[in-house]
Amino acid sequence: MSGSWGNSLKISIFGESHGPAIGITMSGLPSGLALDMDWVNREMQRRAPGQNRLSTPRKEADVPRILSGLFEGRTTGTPLCAVIENQSTRSSDYEELKDLMRPGHGDYPGTIRYQGFQDPRGGGHFSGRITAPLVFAGAVCKQILAEKGIQVGAHIQSIGRIKDRSFTLEPTLGELEALAQAELPLLDPDRGPAMAQAILDAKADCDSLGGTIECVILGVGPGVGEPFFDSVESVLSHLLFSIPAVKGVEFGAGFESAALVGSQCNDLYYYEGNQVKTRTNRCGGVTGGITNGMPILFRVAVRPTASIAKPQETIALSGGTRTLSITGRHDPCIVPRAVPVVEAAAAIGILELLKEREACRT
Amino acid sequence: MSGSWGNSLKISIFGESHGPAIGITMSGLPSGLALDMDWVNREMQRRAPGQNRLSTPRKEADVPRILSGLFEGRTTGTPLCAVIENQSTRSSDYEELKDLMRPGHGDYPGTIRYQGFQDPRGGGHFSGRITAPLVFAGAVCKQILAEKGIQVGAHIQSIGRIKDRSFTLEPTLGELEALAQAELPLLDPDRGPAMAQAILDAKADCDSLGGTIECVILGVGPGVGEPFFDSVESVLSHLLFSIPAVKGVEFGAGFESAALVGSQCNDLYYYEGNQVKTRTNRCGGVTGGITNGMPILFRVAVRPTASIAKPQETIALSGGTRTLSITGRHDPCIVPRAVPVVEAAAAIGILELLKEREACRT
Amino acid sequence: MSGSWGNSLKISIFGESHGPAIGITMSGLPSGLALDMDWVNREMQRRAPGQNRLSTPRKEADVPRILSGLFEGRTTGTPLCAVIENQSTRSSDYEELKDLMRPGHGDYPGTIRYQGFQDPRGGGHFSGRITAPLVFAGAVCKQILAEKGIQVGAHIQSIGRIKDRSFTLEPTLGELEALAQAELPLLDPDRGPAMAQAILDAKADCDSLGGTIECVILGVGPGVGEPFFDSVESVLSHLLFSIPAVKGVEFGAGFESAALVGSQCNDLYYYEGNQVKTRTNRCGGVTGGITNGMPILFRVAVRPTASIAKPQETIALSGGTRTLSITGRHDPCIVPRAVPVVEAAAAIGILELLKEREACRT
Amino acid sequence: MSGSWGNSLKISIFGESHGPAIGITMSGLPSGLALDMDWVNREMQRRAPGQNRLSTPRKEADVPRILSGLFEGRTTGTPLCAVIENQSTRSSDYEELKDLMRPGHGDYPGTIRYQGFQDPRGGGHFSGRITAPLVFAGAVCKQILAEKGIQVGAHIQSIGRIKDRSFTLEPTLGELEALAQAELPLLDPDRGPAMAQAILDAKADCDSLGGTIECVILGVGPGVGEPFFDSVESVLSHLLFSIPAVKGVEFGAGFESAALVGSQCNDLYYYEGNQVKTRTNRCGGVTGGITNGMPILFRVAVRPTASIAKPQETIALSGGTRTLSITGRHDPCIVPRAVPVVEAAAAIGILELLKEREACRT
Repeated sequence: MSGSWGNSLKISIFGESHGPAIGITMSGLPSGLALDMDWVNREMQRRAPGQNRLSTPRKEADVPRILSGLFEGRTTGTPLCAVIENQSTRSSDYEELKDLMRPGHGDYPGTIRYQGFQDPRGGGHFSGRITAPLVFAGAVCKQILAEKGIQVGAHIQSIGRIKDRSFTLEPTLGELEALAQAELPLLDPDRGPAMAQAILDAKADCDSLGGTIECVILGVGPGVGEPFFDSVESVLSHLLFSIPAVKGVEFGAGFESAALVGSQCNDLYYYEGNQVKTRTNRCGGVTGGITNGMPILFRVAVRPTASIAKPQETIALSGGTRTLSITGRHDPCIVPRAVPVVEAAAAIGILELLKEREACRT
Repeated sequence: MSGSWGNSLKISIFGESHGPAIGITMSGLPSGLALDMDWVNREMQRRAPGQNRLSTPRKEADVPRILSGLFEGRTTGTPLCAVIENQSTRSSDYEELKDLMRPGHGDYPGTIRYQGFQDPRGGGHFSGRITAPLVFAGAVCKQILAEKGIQVGAHIQSIGRIKDRSFTLEPTLGELEALAQAELPLLDPDRGPAMAQAILDAKADCDSLGGTIECVILGVGPGVGEPFFDSVESVLSHLLFSIPAVKGVEFGAGFESAALVGSQCNDLYYYEGNQVKTRTNRCGGVTGGITNGMPILFRVAVRPTASIAKPQETIALSGGTRTLSITGRHDPCIVPRAVPVVEAAAAIGILELLKEREACRT
Repeated sequence: MSGSWGNSLKISIFGESHGPAIGITMSGLPSGLALDMDWVNREMQRRAPGQNRLSTPRKEADVPRILSGLFEGRTTGTPLCAVIENQSTRSSDYEELKDLMRPGHGDYPGTIRYQGFQDPRGGGHFSGRITAPLVFAGAVCKQILAEKGIQVGAHIQSIGRIKDRSFTLEPTLGELEALAQAELPLLDPDRGPAMAQAILDAKADCDSLGGTIECVILGVGPGVGEPFFDSVESVLSHLLFSIPAVKGVEFGAGFESAALVGSQCNDLYYYEGNQVKTRTNRCGGVTGGITNGMPILFRVAVRPTASIAKPQETIALSGGTRTLSITGRHDPCIVPRAVPVVEAAAAIGILELLKEREACRT
Repeated sequence: MSGSWGNSLKISIFGESHGPAIGITMSGLPSGLALDMDWVNREMQRRAPGQNRLSTPRKEADVPRILSGLFEGRTTGTPLCAVIENQSTRSSDYEELKDLMRPGHGDYPGTIRYQGFQDPRGGGHFSGRITAPLVFAGAVCKQILAEKGIQVGAHIQSIGRIKDRSFTLEPTLGELEALAQAELPLLDPDRGPAMAQAILDAKADCDSLGGTIECVILGVGPGVGEPFFDSVESVLSHLLFSIPAVKGVEFGAGFESAALVGSQCNDLYYYEGNQVKTRTNRCGGVTGGITNGMPILFRVAVRPTASIAKPQETIALSGGTRTLSITGRHDPCIVPRAVPVVEAAAAIGILELLKEREACRT
């Protein structure tokens, strides 16, 4: 169903890139959470456009205005709605976009799905901008999770062909916090200049780059998730594949596990004091759809930005083919700004799963 | 939520490997579909155990008995429930399984999730056997889809390190039908003997193998799916990640797309007569979460079977660690039997998306 | 959506009156509940047909067989499926029922809804018999609720024009238990003979009677339910209006409250020790959609059985009108057997609401 | 779940009476509907406060601002979000309301439910004001339904003890339109002055009045709804019981049918040309949970406004009891303003059911 997700935590997203505002409503939140709006706004800034030379020059303050569900700084427990006004909209030239279908974009599928009535300005509801409300919702969820000792963090695993190293078996909270504050969140910051250069090269070449993001969730503990149909992998992937440009999701060893033998792939249990741990984490913290208490670990593949200035052949709905060179303000590589979006999806999904578990126990 | 999935098409699964029966209820089906039970049973046989030397020796007829929703051979439109009796159950020795946590299995997470009350016999609700009702549901959906000109097919993309070739840009119906009848569904059957040998080698080595499966859906047409949160990728991955042992899902070029530049990754549109097509299919038939009319193409990673005879260290819940050598009847490689399960998930997901589209249009 | 209900507790019902079996699957149950099957079967017997001269002569053992979700007498926490075989089916003569639309029945609406493919035998999926699985699900929920100190009970408030007295402000557990064991559950058993006679008179007259049922839920405590859209009244009425023949639902003073002034209708709060109570219960234990800790009180209107032997004019789908005299085994008054069904709906609804509350708090 | 409703049409409501804004998001709408905002605003005015001497003096423009889902005057098919700013808020004195629990209000249940963190100003999320977004959503649905030949209308059936006459068997579109434009929507406008006087008398007496509303839906046609669990009655009552102050819902003869015999209660079918009709409508257009093509007819009971100036005893959460005389701007009788809210709920529910039917047929 368009725009709505979740069972015990419900989120309902709305908005178009050049419409009056975008936003999200969250239902099923606990009462009494003291929302740290400064921190929420910092999370928003991690995704906000126009921050540096690697992202789109479109500038948006992206400060959410909370319309409901918050009273004297605390969540009431009633639906919390936040809206973000669209400010930097330049919509002079969208007539062409109703006719020329940009390759790799939602233009053509969207035109069929919405029978030509979708808002074409700035990508409309397909714009990556619609992930801003997701980051807001993720920030709220992260604060709830933090009180339960759960932390979400992610780094750029690769941009183009340049790779960061991977998370260790048990990343620390400090590592995650450092990542959240970095311009390019990398475990090995030395890879940063090469990545930045690769992005600038692609941009200079009127082209774009993709990459992968690795995300970890610490502190969830064992016993969260369901075998059918709400496995941890199912719930997280459902959200992750809603993020524009995500084309692959894998947990633990993921696709690599397909080439291992069982004795390599099984994570062996042992006791560390009273705590059950595994000596490897090839399952990404999830077996049988349920957490085993190790860090939940997954990676997503982000395709290169579809909007490129390089001339491409495409169809005109009015008939015939044309050569299209996409102008406008686009990110040459969306991966850095997608990192907080991936974290937000993870936070939302985990809170939903925790809520479901409490419901099941009742 | 445990056991239930879907919005317009609802499925509700139940059962334990050694309980009285396993089954599924489907709600939201159309009335009047003439169900070809012979064909349904052939689909069941594609997944059924004990068919050949590559799979578990456990033999189950796996003939579904329909309890409701079918009258004079046609669906009534009321909930359709099918059950499959468990016949070949040997449950003498499950006490040990309540104490020794098998690595890679749902034992430990399940014990926490269900507070020790889960049925441990034969893996209980975590057994791969629970996918039999999914194949039944998929077979019903496939018949409905076939009337709309939609076909689902899959092949083994790899087992261990041995690879099949990939689907061409536009696979034919004939190719899919041939795959459905093969013992090892391969585009290049010459790879079969090497794969079979690899499985037998792993078995001889008391070990197991994983692999990847590539699936294609033909005939869906453009305009199916939603940007948020029911993208085609979201809906399909939700189901696919509920299949035991699936650890990765990617669409089109998937993880490989992360290393491409935009001009390589964008699929260029052209007209073939009146029909819109793309010259490549790196997006797997989906952009912006919505189908573009090209074949929907995805791959899943299947980890090697967790149950291996090779001795492994593990914990005892009663305390301490032990060496465990898993006996019993297990598949040395689940990939061949997982092929119809992956197809079933795809068929269920696509029918749901088609139903949602009709609902949205109303 | 046909057949499925609930968010945190999911039930999925199936079956036709003369099909192989009817049943229900429950997801979201807690693990470890020791299910008292003797008590469950007694609940089933309260609804079972053929018990006395006031009900249909169709005899059905109605003993549920549990297919999944129960191990060594306790719920596992995985989906629990129970089926009830149909035994006393006499389906020789249903051809006429496909043509002649019985007044007051689901025949005509069902024929349009299911395009003529529904199972017409014995009312098919429209049969009151489909409430047997509901009673099973209710019995499971009642056992879970009992451990939380919550009890559900109901009595016949009226049959035809003969009325029982109403519940007092705070009914006792003993009163509810006595009602559950009575052939005609009445607060004033002296009204029983007159009610029985009225039913027999209607039967002798080839006609039928309706009535009302008053239900109370004790021990829920304040703070359960939501203002929008899952008010206690919303959740319970959704289930209650799914029971065939229910045509009205009212809480507390209900329709009568419409004729009161505010100062009569408001229930005044007071402290009894530390406990908050109200001096009256015109709101039926619910204000603002949320429980206030007083007994939840509601009444349902049950229309007279539609199947009567008295000749009635009706249409033939094949054309023209006919006089129809419905033979077969029908209850002249469904109210006594509907009492446990109403209780079951109440128990299911309350457990769902309790689960939702726990989810919201997380 | 708090705030969210629907399966194929999803609505998500939010807001507090004295917060920044209230609003609603609708998902699953068709693309391309030309929204007549003038008409929408007229619908809003039917519910808006401060219109005449019979309602609260609080004045609110209640003009919805559409944030998304509308482009060039037509629905895009993506989520449509509308917000209504709160303007006339006077929140000086809510400290008392956090301590003194107003009888008949959601104060005490809400304090427990939300652990004291709810917004107490002006009733917060419990305010009748939150029905304004419902009327907006209903207005959108009504426009979609109108294109399908479906009309919703309602009249005041009673205020206090003064009754209007009931709808005839087949009300006309003209009758419904006249009702929608009347200050007091009555089938017999001569009852208006007595009703108005009764309201003013109650107000003068520092008291309040309730009443009943009768609603009819024309043009739905047969075959809409489900036997379990989404009967027409279930779906509509779920929404209707979310409207504050609604304490009873009945369809057709409703509670009166409980006192009839079957031969009186059954509606006899006949052909009028090719059309199937019934000679009476005691079932309210619904049998077996599914429409039969006759007008859908139901009534709701609205309790008298809980907020009265007459002194009432109540508890203080800080301890002890107090006498409370509620000042502030309250409607002495909410029934007239509830009429468009009831219609809105009916329109939303019917559109959802129509969408579900299309989904089932696919």
